[in-house]
Amino acid sequence: MTIQYQIRPGAYYDSVILMQLQKSLAGLPGVTDAGVVMATPANRELLAASGFALAGIEAKADDLLIIVTGESETAVADAIAQVGDLLQQRRTTAAQAYRPHSLKAAAANLPAAEWVLISVPGRFAAAVADEALDLGKHVFLYSDNVSLEDEVELKQKARAKGLLLMGPDCGTAVINGVGLGFANRVRRGDIGIVAASGTGLQAVNAEIHNLGGGVSQAIGTGGRDLKAAVGGVTARQALDWLRRDPQTNVIVLISKPPSEQVAADLLRDAQHAGKPVVVNFIGFPPPGRRLGNLIFASGLTDAAEHAVQISFAKAAQLTQKRRPLHGYLRGLFSGGTLAYEMLLGLQTILSPLYSNLSSDPEKRLADLTTSQANTIIDLGEDEFTQGRLHPMMDNDLRLRRLRQETADPGVDLIVLDVVLGEGAHPDPAGELAPAIAAAKKAGKRVVAIVVGTEDDPQDLNDQIERLAAAGATVFPNVNEALDYVYNRLPAAENAAPSVSFNSGELAAINVGLESFYDSIKAQGGTAVQVDWRPPAGGNEKLMAILAKMKEMKK
Amino acid sequence: MTIQYQIRPGAYYDSVILMQLQKSLAGLPGVTDAGVVMATPANRELLAASGFALAGIEAKADDLLIIVTGESETAVADAIAQVGDLLQQRRTTAAQAYRPHSLKAAAANLPAAEWVLISVPGRFAAAVADEALDLGKHVFLYSDNVSLEDEVELKQKARAKGLLLMGPDCGTAVINGVGLGFANRVRRGDIGIVAASGTGLQAVNAEIHNLGGGVSQAIGTGGRDLKAAVGGVTARQALDWLRRDPQTNVIVLISKPPSEQVAADLLRDAQHAGKPVVVNFIGFPPPGRRLGNLIFASGLTDAAEHAVQISFAKAAQLTQKRRPLHGYLRGLFSGGTLAYEMLLGLQTILSPLYSNLSSDPEKRLADLTTSQANTIIDLGEDEFTQGRLHPMMDNDLRLRRLRQETADPGVDLIVLDVVLGEGAHPDPAGELAPAIAAAKKAGKRVVAIVVGTEDDPQDLNDQIERLAAAGATVFPNVNEALDYVYNRLPAAENAAPSVSFNSGELAAINVGLESFYDSIKAQGGTAVQVDWRPPAGGNEKLMAILAKMKEMKK
Repeated sequence: MTIQYQIRPGAYYDSVILMQLQKSLAGLPGVTDAGVVMATPANRELLAASGFALAGIEAKADDLLIIVTGESETAVADAIAQVGDLLQQRRTTAAQAYRPHSLKAAAANLPAAEWVLISVPGRFAAAVADEALDLGKHVFLYSDNVSLEDEVELKQKARAKGLLLMGPDCGTAVINGVGLGFANRVRRGDIGIVAASGTGLQAVNAEIHNLGGGVSQAIGTGGRDLKAAVGGVTARQALDWLRRDPQTNVIVLISKPPSEQVAADLLRDAQHAGKPVVVNFIGFPPPGRRLGNLIFASGLTDAAEHAVQISFAKAAQLTQKRRPLHGYLRGLFSGGTLAYEMLLGLQTILSPLYSNLSSDPEKRLADLTTSQANTIIDLGEDEFTQGRLHPMMDNDLRLRRLRQETADPGVDLIVLDVVLGEGAHPDPAGELAPAIAAAKKAGKRVVAIVVGTEDDPQDLNDQIERLAAAGATVFPNVNEALDYVYNRLPAAENAAPSVSFNSGELAAINVGLESFYDSIKAQGGTAVQVDWRPPAGGNEKLMAILAKMKEMKK
Repeated sequence: MTIQYQIRPGAYYDSVILMQLQKSLAGLPGVTDAGVVMATPANRELLAASGFALAGIEAKADDLLIIVTGESETAVADAIAQVGDLLQQRRTTAAQAYRPHSLKAAAANLPAAEWVLISVPGRFAAAVADEALDLGKHVFLYSDNVSLEDEVELKQKARAKGLLLMGPDCGTAVINGVGLGFANRVRRGDIGIVAASGTGLQAVNAEIHNLGGGVSQAIGTGGRDLKAAVGGVTARQALDWLRRDPQTNVIVLISKPPSEQVAADLLRDAQHAGKPVVVNFIGFPPPGRRLGNLIFASGLTDAAEHAVQISFAKAAQLTQKRRPLHGYLRGLFSGGTLAYEMLLGLQTILSPLYSNLSSDPEKRLADLTTSQANTIIDLGEDEFTQGRLHPMMDNDLRLRRLRQETADPGVDLIVLDVVLGEGAHPDPAGELAPAIAAAKKAGKRVVAIVVGTEDDPQDLNDQIERLAAAGATVFPNVNEALDYVYNRLPAAENAAPSVSFNSGELAAINVGLESFYDSIKAQGGTAVQVDWRPPAGGNEKLMAILAKMKEMKK
């Protein structure tokens, strides 16, 4: 077994070429294996794991390393000698006579193109995207290995211009029925998708189709879009677009767990979409099953099933918006788990939110006797029950607190639980009703969650009637109380200009992987392929000088 | 406005007495408000928040503080003067002629009693529970403010004796149709409940009844049972009991998010219950919707609905157990979100589990080129795609890894995803099938998740058939692949002796709140009330000496 290698410093080759070179080398007579990679530390490790001996090979991360093992010195040397020729055999699949050499030329050639697809290597991608935005184009940025700073800058620029920037590392989208990047072929329909997750979007897309449903637009955002630094710029623009799109009746929103503030903004946007929105924040505990117009799915499959069900039922029968919350919510609970379920359901949408149940010190109520902003308090916790009966038996502490919240001008909504049954107070409504009536008189809204059965000693219906007569809105569980709150959320702030694109035929400029050009054409879209080369042949020093010169020209 | 107070140092009063005293004082002529509390710091703060001026009042945490405000000196002084008399007027509700003064005497008096209910103040509760276990009784420990150390000790003792200790801070249970503590009246039926959550159990109980279902047994564990220190002792005993109970067809398991190891043990126990188990770990992301015999609910209401649906359908039609996993699982993914969804679904049941997607440094794959234990690897991550095509286009890296996993004798199951569609490899099955066949030949099991539609350019059905022909078990989504794994989990270890109690009539000894005695009788159970007083009148120093003497006698 013998091994030989070649290093080609700092030059640019696209990955298709490298894959083809590797396959060609590995197929030559007498060759047992071949590796063709940019010599990054990760790639070196992977080569080593595949059995290539790399000791003594010095190559930098942007060097191309070509390595061949074989049965004889001659076979391996022969293979290495062919590298130059093989690299020349660039196979062009794009059947396009004229190939513009710049984005600008491509835009002039296909003025209808509203979209630019970019799949050049990461270190070049931000500059190309920036240029596309300057030309007023929406961007599908497939490239990965783009820095977070570049992403933030590009997205803010896009938003300011009313343009959509999908990505970086956006693997998939379906725009006007045409799949971009990796995309399953799905029928058109009335389900719109926003996904900070490439295969998440593909999986939901495919399942919707397989269940008989169809997709209006599917917009990828890139996996980092919902991180705090990026702020969900693209997802919020996309949601806004789908909200206004008359072809979309149901929206699906998919993401890995978003940052807390971004989740809150997105859910509020979604809550004001005026259409059902199926939400799957993968791995994030759902605050409920169905709250307001939001349906929380427990996974990708579940999300697709919900969306198709709603689409079929054309059930966009939404309740009218009620008077939005205009002050704080204060929850005074006797049941720990009820308090906890309420806290979980609210934490994604009400901020700031404090509780004596929070494990996060920043969200823990500083002083048990005083509510802060929105507060959920469990009066059955150990700290309240030393030498005192549980609040399910003794309402004294809760009545005092209810009066305290009533006196607070910042409070709008007070939520109570009333747990009936054996062992509990024989008539909680009798004690609570006067205090609830006083709260109502002071202009507060009161919600009571009554847990009980008709066989309970307290007479369930009588308790409900008396709480309602005092002015409380009564629900049988936390989920319905959360639904009440979700239907009354004030809108999130979103001053960005609306994104618009025509939803007829798709026309796009493709920079990078030619297979993406081929697939747009195969799907009936219009496209132009740019014969792109990195500036200065990919030489980083020269690129920096060019960028500086461009900057000075502005 | 004038204020007076009285301090009664270190003596024991039960909380009902204190509540009655406070109400009596507040109702006296000329009195505006009264407070009667053990003078803990929390209680002092609460008094202050209610408007009592406490400056200069020195009282210790185990002192009883009685404070009265009123219109005149005389009225307030009159009220304080009556404290002694009012404390004597203990109203006994329990219509019981003979009141044993000790647990032992009560046990002799009602030998059929398998249960002891304990609701004495927290600082005395552990000793009473210990005594009940020594008498061979199951314990319902309502008292809160019991230390975690005492809980661990008591539960380990109970488990060793084959006894169930519910609590501390266990608010509710339904045993043989009789509610203990706080409990809604529900019809008997075939749904068994295990809950580390008091009001969670009550809410599900009540909703099951209101939906027309019924409850066989509802067992509370205390809110800390599923913490790592306690290890879910009670929950696992209860689950085992319901598994064997012929009256239970469906089990509901409710808890706040458990510790990771406890969750894994519980889910494995549940997976081997041979009955459908509806799980709601409140605020914990569900790994899927329905996996094996486990149904993951998104909230309390959802849990109740699922349980009743299954109970009505008598759908205990469970698939037969398949050959359990006997080695590691290795997932080689091209789709990031598919990998992530798989990781989430497995993290509660397979341990240890590593991935290049884990944010937890301890679960992050140390070396990208080598799998550890169970591993889920996303080959589409940035570190793998520098200068290399995405694995959806280029299978080279995955094929190498597949051969590597095949060569590892510790591996049992290899999971792959195959994402079809525009942009993806034109024939992934063609490249993967030989490597899958080789893995099968080496004794591995292979699962392939194929995402695609019939309109995709690759021919979905042909791809599926060729993967299956090579020996892969093919599923259309991650959820079904997870289901495959859940149906093949090896059992968790659980060497504890089984708990047993008769499931006919309930007989119990009650120590503490008399209202609990009343309610057992009202529900048709048999009970005896112990006329309990703390040892040494509640004097802590004397109690310590007594405890030491008892210890020496053993």
